[in-house]
Amino acid sequence: MNRAVFSHPPNPSTGMTLTSPARRARGDAATVRPLQKGQQTKAAIVDAALGLAAHYGLEGLSIGALAELMHMSKSGVFAHFGSREELQISVVLEYHARFEQEVFFPAMQAARGLPRLRELFGSWMKRTSVEIDSGCIYISGAVEFDDRPGPVRDALATSVSTWLAAMRRAIEIAIEERHLQAATDAGQMAFEVHALILALHYEARFLRSPDSVQRALRAFDSIVERQQRTPDAASSPAPRKSPTAARKPHG
Amino acid sequence: MNRAVFSHPPNPSTGMTLTSPARRARGDAATVRPLQKGQQTKAAIVDAALGLAAHYGLEGLSIGALAELMHMSKSGVFAHFGSREELQISVVLEYHARFEQEVFFPAMQAARGLPRLRELFGSWMKRTSVEIDSGCIYISGAVEFDDRPGPVRDALATSVSTWLAAMRRAIEIAIEERHLQAATDAGQMAFEVHALILALHYEARFLRSPDSVQRALRAFDSIVERQQRTPDAASSPAPRKSPTAARKPHG
Repeated sequence: MNRAVFSHPPNPSTGMTLTSPARRARGDAATVRPLQKGQQTKAAIVDAALGLAAHYGLEGLSIGALAELMHMSKSGVFAHFGSREELQISVVLEYHARFEQEVFFPAMQAARGLPRLRELFGSWMKRTSVEIDSGCIYISGAVEFDDRPGPVRDALATSVSTWLAAMRRAIEIAIEERHLQAATDAGQMAFEVHALILALHYEARFLRSPDSVQRALRAFDSIVERQQRTPDAASSPAPRKSPTAARKPHG
Repeated sequence: MNRAVFSHPPNPSTGMTLTSPARRARGDAATVRPLQKGQQTKAAIVDAALGLAAHYGLEGLSIGALAELMHMSKSGVFAHFGSREELQISVVLEYHARFEQEVFFPAMQAARGLPRLRELFGSWMKRTSVEIDSGCIYISGAVEFDDRPGPVRDALATSVSTWLAAMRRAIEIAIEERHLQAATDAGQMAFEVHALILALHYEARFLRSPDSVQRALRAFDSIVERQQRTPDAASSPAPRKSPTAARKPHG
């Protein structure tokens, strides 16, 4: 299984890597080790902060509300984070880690190529649908921070870019596996798939359109189908190998 | 010219129609009449508020900041609006009126069918690109108000729904004109086109991707092309009438 696609590049402007202490605290990372009580408390605060941020946005995070939720003093909460900004970044890292667990790792279980790409889109959509009731900080955060440069914006943009790059890589693998035609523009296709996720979120969450999930699925199928035709002969589909066909050595 | 597509249905929950006093004050509506000084002042306040909301969101609107910007007292600003909520709704109505002027009326100048649909997408995209530097309250407002029921949310949702219905109607006319195949699902196609606008905004504004406009245009062309094929014979494009061909009586 190739997990290189999920590597977390350090953010060029902050030097920060996307690793979440809260996730390690839950013990669902590859290397589990016992945490100090302080780390456990910090992880619990981040967990509560993530819940608040999903409803009120990263900018809606208040140390006061968080302290009340945690039955702690404000200074007790502050002791774990140097600033509100550091708390916001911890929330982004935790969100990133959960996205990885819920969307990307499961997709990696599927066979290389189209099966994996479909699974990736499916889990992403599923996650988006679940968030209809809570809110996606990648979408709300983009609105909050698009004109506010700084480390919180950088952390958010790095995290989103990582997932878009992973989607693009899954498309490239589907091309290598000849499930999609060689002329497929992976960047273009990733843009179009990302668009469907954004529309699903907008129309289901804000406009309450009941058929958004079905529309997003149908549109995804259309995009894939188009990339299965040969570019200059629309009548004959491109040759396709079955997902179980012989793999390339670097699979 | 059929402008029925731009009718503003009263919001079912508020009974409110989308008519902006500020636009009338600028004198660019069909019926221009001199305004009282009070109406002019109100229109100027809404204009300034729209500028603030584009940067800081509808929830970022502060009567204090607005009063400072207008060189007025807070109570002077308040005299024109019963509440901050009423001010927010006035901003939504003004935004709606400008959208109509900049996006929809110009598109109506194009020939019925595909030319008009292309023009509509083009102006919408152009407007979205302009807003890269300021912000679109349909997108930021959706994030701010998706879980806050009330008249501001209703005004926003009614306005967005009006434009999505207009996009859908433009697609339906393109089907009637046989520029798109009869089997085209107009609601599905409107969803896919809306998705491109959302992705353009997200990737250009938040991720600063330089090629988003080109990607959105290419994707739009792909969607149109797909709907020009006959459903069961991908090799032969559907019969198309030229945009200048005889019109139906209800054109």
